[in-house]
Amino acid sequence: MIIVIKPGTSPQEIDRINQELSRPNLKTETSLGKHKVVIGLVGDTNELNPEQIQAISPCVENVLQIKQPFKRASLEFRHGEYSEVVVSTPNSEVAFGKNAPLVNVAGPCSVESEQMILDTAFQLKAAGAQFLRGGAYKPRTSPYDFQGHAELALEWLATARQETGLGIITEVMDAAELNAIAEVADVIQVGARNMQNFSLLKKVGAKGKPVLLKRGMSATIQEWLMAAEYILAAGNPNVILCERGIRTFDKQYTRNTFDISVIPVLRELTHLPIMLDPSHATGKSQYVASMALAAIAAGTDSLMIEVHPNPAKALSDGPQSLTPEQFYLLMEEMKVMAMAVGRSWKSASESMFCNLSHYQQYAAIA
Amino acid sequence: MIIVIKPGTSPQEIDRINQELSRPNLKTETSLGKHKVVIGLVGDTNELNPEQIQAISPCVENVLQIKQPFKRASLEFRHGEYSEVVVSTPNSEVAFGKNAPLVNVAGPCSVESEQMILDTAFQLKAAGAQFLRGGAYKPRTSPYDFQGHAELALEWLATARQETGLGIITEVMDAAELNAIAEVADVIQVGARNMQNFSLLKKVGAKGKPVLLKRGMSATIQEWLMAAEYILAAGNPNVILCERGIRTFDKQYTRNTFDISVIPVLRELTHLPIMLDPSHATGKSQYVASMALAAIAAGTDSLMIEVHPNPAKALSDGPQSLTPEQFYLLMEEMKVMAMAVGRSWKSASESMFCNLSHYQQYAAIA
Amino acid sequence: MIIVIKPGTSPQEIDRINQELSRPNLKTETSLGKHKVVIGLVGDTNELNPEQIQAISPCVENVLQIKQPFKRASLEFRHGEYSEVVVSTPNSEVAFGKNAPLVNVAGPCSVESEQMILDTAFQLKAAGAQFLRGGAYKPRTSPYDFQGHAELALEWLATARQETGLGIITEVMDAAELNAIAEVADVIQVGARNMQNFSLLKKVGAKGKPVLLKRGMSATIQEWLMAAEYILAAGNPNVILCERGIRTFDKQYTRNTFDISVIPVLRELTHLPIMLDPSHATGKSQYVASMALAAIAAGTDSLMIEVHPNPAKALSDGPQSLTPEQFYLLMEEMKVMAMAVGRSWKSASESMFCNLSHYQQYAAIA
Amino acid sequence: MIIVIKPGTSPQEIDRINQELSRPNLKTETSLGKHKVVIGLVGDTNELNPEQIQAISPCVENVLQIKQPFKRASLEFRHGEYSEVVVSTPNSEVAFGKNAPLVNVAGPCSVESEQMILDTAFQLKAAGAQFLRGGAYKPRTSPYDFQGHAELALEWLATARQETGLGIITEVMDAAELNAIAEVADVIQVGARNMQNFSLLKKVGAKGKPVLLKRGMSATIQEWLMAAEYILAAGNPNVILCERGIRTFDKQYTRNTFDISVIPVLRELTHLPIMLDPSHATGKSQYVASMALAAIAAGTDSLMIEVHPNPAKALSDGPQSLTPEQFYLLMEEMKVMAMAVGRSWKSASESMFCNLSHYQQYAAIA
Repeated sequence: MIIVIKPGTSPQEIDRINQELSRPNLKTETSLGKHKVVIGLVGDTNELNPEQIQAISPCVENVLQIKQPFKRASLEFRHGEYSEVVVSTPNSEVAFGKNAPLVNVAGPCSVESEQMILDTAFQLKAAGAQFLRGGAYKPRTSPYDFQGHAELALEWLATARQETGLGIITEVMDAAELNAIAEVADVIQVGARNMQNFSLLKKVGAKGKPVLLKRGMSATIQEWLMAAEYILAAGNPNVILCERGIRTFDKQYTRNTFDISVIPVLRELTHLPIMLDPSHATGKSQYVASMALAAIAAGTDSLMIEVHPNPAKALSDGPQSLTPEQFYLLMEEMKVMAMAVGRSWKSASESMFCNLSHYQQYAAIA
Repeated sequence: MIIVIKPGTSPQEIDRINQELSRPNLKTETSLGKHKVVIGLVGDTNELNPEQIQAISPCVENVLQIKQPFKRASLEFRHGEYSEVVVSTPNSEVAFGKNAPLVNVAGPCSVESEQMILDTAFQLKAAGAQFLRGGAYKPRTSPYDFQGHAELALEWLATARQETGLGIITEVMDAAELNAIAEVADVIQVGARNMQNFSLLKKVGAKGKPVLLKRGMSATIQEWLMAAEYILAAGNPNVILCERGIRTFDKQYTRNTFDISVIPVLRELTHLPIMLDPSHATGKSQYVASMALAAIAAGTDSLMIEVHPNPAKALSDGPQSLTPEQFYLLMEEMKVMAMAVGRSWKSASESMFCNLSHYQQYAAIA
Repeated sequence: MIIVIKPGTSPQEIDRINQELSRPNLKTETSLGKHKVVIGLVGDTNELNPEQIQAISPCVENVLQIKQPFKRASLEFRHGEYSEVVVSTPNSEVAFGKNAPLVNVAGPCSVESEQMILDTAFQLKAAGAQFLRGGAYKPRTSPYDFQGHAELALEWLATARQETGLGIITEVMDAAELNAIAEVADVIQVGARNMQNFSLLKKVGAKGKPVLLKRGMSATIQEWLMAAEYILAAGNPNVILCERGIRTFDKQYTRNTFDISVIPVLRELTHLPIMLDPSHATGKSQYVASMALAAIAAGTDSLMIEVHPNPAKALSDGPQSLTPEQFYLLMEEMKVMAMAVGRSWKSASESMFCNLSHYQQYAAIA
Repeated sequence: MIIVIKPGTSPQEIDRINQELSRPNLKTETSLGKHKVVIGLVGDTNELNPEQIQAISPCVENVLQIKQPFKRASLEFRHGEYSEVVVSTPNSEVAFGKNAPLVNVAGPCSVESEQMILDTAFQLKAAGAQFLRGGAYKPRTSPYDFQGHAELALEWLATARQETGLGIITEVMDAAELNAIAEVADVIQVGARNMQNFSLLKKVGAKGKPVLLKRGMSATIQEWLMAAEYILAAGNPNVILCERGIRTFDKQYTRNTFDISVIPVLRELTHLPIMLDPSHATGKSQYVASMALAAIAAGTDSLMIEVHPNPAKALSDGPQSLTPEQFYLLMEEMKVMAMAVGRSWKSASESMFCNLSHYQQYAAIA
């Protein structure tokens, strides 16, 4: 149930309404949107009488039931206003959301060495990325495959963050590592395989840091939003949803099927920001560019793209990784595409590097 | 196996090479591309010795094996040159292909009356479409649902073709109707449910008219190309491949999953032109626009979009149909998108209608 | 809508009720079950008033709406009484149904030669099969693969039928071949790829011969029953449903996923008899035996098993074919299983061959 | 790589061979089967020379490479000998395996109260079950659904174990709860949603208790075996694999698709015991009996069946739960089925209760 407050209502009156609503087994959450204030109620709402709530204050505009099972994640819960997840990175605050500039996240599957991650980070920054992704802990199908450099990799990511000012996104696989990860990461990633690891979701939700929630490989959209709801219900409103390909019957040419129509579907269902990952979705670097452009055309808020300085020698996911130079060139195309669909674009480093030759010289040194 | 001919070789010499290759159980097909001539060999190629073929003429540049099971449909069969399917419509010749302008096909699921299809056709033409789609014979899940107006609908389509000059695309469900359909249709559609109706494919292939081959709802890309191969092997090189959504585990919010990554995959595998149908893929009109734009961004050669003068009263597929006005507005966006990705755009009627108000007046009269 | 008639009602009264119900746009179909008579009404039933129908005769016990979209195929349409499809074969009448003995169908994927099909047929008969399956027209993914011996194969099947007395089941792919097939086949098969070839379904339905309707490879159960409804609506009540594996995300070890739980699901939904095909479902001969036994345990009415005299040299589907000897041994196990679940068993040839050694001698000669 | 030891080799010689093989980065694991001793080698086996290993001792019969990516889980790793997982329950030792009697596990989805679980446990024991299943921690799609009674439920399970002597199987969702669960559970369950929670797999593997590993809802068979490999690689050889239905395109009538053909597939690939769960697979109690019988017919080693004293009032998964009486009757059928396929059957309580009337009296009291 949500209570829409009339524009211009004083904070004191909003506080008073909140107090009037206070009951055991009921939580209130106030969303201060740009255009309206909405108080969401979650818990035993069956006993509540909309008319009585309406009568609490003349500043109550409307009292509405939320029909979706994902209460806090639903667009209704904010009365149609999309939320913005703002992340503080050393370089600047970066906002994810329908009305914010496109956010670009890039980096290798796993952090392979300090030098490698530093070099990559500088090149991504040069190309205009705002976030560096890189795995310290890697979920691998085989116990005999490389499992990530763990704490060491976290230290290297911290160095890369300090040196470049890029925000860091890295995956948590085990609640025991959550504190160590939260010290380095600006956004904590929950991977596809853990999308329904509800214990982890609760703990990540309690942590407070922004969370990137990847869609499970055969999760329905509703299950995905219910997983987000676990994080929101634990008190963390800063959730970004990331589509990374779903499992279907044909795996001969692509690793997964890129479910790009989640973009308009999610826009109808939820206020949460959307990221798309064409690298995991397709599994092949030569398909990434066209899928990244398609994602922007369809209205994504953010992209996650795998970039590795030497894909052929990557310890994991080499075939789907772009080189930094390919990423730079793709960013040029993405910028044009963003403009074509009216999405704003903000490159942290426009003043530093203005053309490919600069970039290639840089790449040559690195 | 293909034989690449050196540039500048005389037609006489190409004929001579063809004659030298003549054997029982072996067919040769000569592709005259813009940049090269390729002779494809299909049949008992095991007995052929590439070196002997090389020795037939100094004009033979190269002799190459085709590894794909879809021989004629493979990009290798034309040595990397994309084919163009050129369709003669009353208004003009329209080419489908990687290097041709974007082709726009629109129309209702089924042809409901003469007036309805005529009005719709004029409005689609006004909005810039080159082809009118509309079902005379409808594949319906239930035998008790409307099955199409059959021959009558074909007559109405013929009238719409004559009056507007638009090309006609309509579906064949039964070989017995093939002649009647071929008299009206400029492109004959084979629907998703008949993608592996091999008898029909052979007969459609023998007919000679351009064919639009929709992907089966759970067909792998390879199976789809093998279905195209049936048509090509029957002597018809004019096949357009149409993705219309595949069946996956989640059908709560969309009818199918729009497999947009087929675009870069098909570009690697086949020379055939590509069409995307966001209407059947999503099943909801509000998702069509963003998916159409994404398809152009990803490089589609053509789009098929369902438009109905009154979607709420449509006899079939109303929920996924745009109104003519919505289609007009989408066409404006599509044009911008086409420009952004460097795809040329050719509107049959640019001179006739230059803005929405004209269009709306027209729509009001119609 | 169905009208349940009281037990003991005279045929004259049933006729009179039928006449009273006669209206344009309405068809009545009378099912004479063992325990009750039910008149089904299909068409414009919205205008009918159950109370008025009740008043037509004191012999009307009940008037009930059918909620399922598959009217004639629904179990409700026969008021809970399972139908029996009785097929006349030279040896005997064979009934398919929940209360009939298990029916065993066996044979090669395709009819490869007269000698091959004759030898196989004798061995299958010796092992206790009632029907011989074998393709004259083969739906093949590639146009370059063996497409079946066509009319010739039909002749060979006719010979096998005459010589052994076994019933013949063979697939129709094209309505143009329907008459020729119907002259030889006791049951006409519609294959998985043509399950939604509605034109073919209508023509097969009009033909009158019993039809084996295979489930499409990604057809929902409801779509499958709607396909059966096309045949029933065309006037043919003799439809057997055959599950042959569905397409899922894992094709590494089996060709398809054997959806064995369709058995209890179909029992709730439809009165039609059920066949299971573990050969196509798994695609590997070593998995056929355990899946055949599981199908009997789950209550199937019939099994279709691929048997080839020399699987290693089969022109199609060799890896999933049993040898005649393996089939004989499996039949022994199947008999035990049928007894364990209370399903009766009727072997055409019990008196002829009573043990493996007989069978092996026979096999040696053949 | 495995080393097959000749029959009759002395333990001392086996020890000596083990020592000779000792290298950093290489682990040896000796399997003492009934018929043979096999030493498995996992790690850097590339440097090993099979001929040199052969030369270590005349008691080495054979040195073989393991081609599967799941080394320890592969059937080759034990040279074709199936393993037996023996679990000590208060009543007796219970063995799971291809050559052991059928093991029956039953119980409610979640432990709802002490009285409820005690009553249920006595009734299941009376019906012949050896294990009681029941969730203390429940993975629920919604954060607002009942999440299990946690520690309290573990205490109640401990009481039920003590009172009835049944073994306990319960799910772990969080490594933090592993110790508490391990004190009560005889077998620790890893649920479908955590099948690729690799951190949890490693910790469960290190714990030593037998593990029931459910298949992920869209996990390929190979991914499932790789997940088992994580547990085996952590030093725990006692893993049972449980199929519980996979996600496919049709969810209208069943919750999942019961992939019963995993039984023969797993038999070819792995030595680990197999359990099937028809309750979660179908999601409807009326389909459980036929699917349980099918699973036995196909050769399962064990069954897990949901039973609730009052399904209509269950806090979770009521629609798929049998009543204790239905379970008792199903056990009678299962016994017949086990006999039919030559699977031995051992009921803990045969002497206590010999017919339904006893059981019903008991049920009436409970």
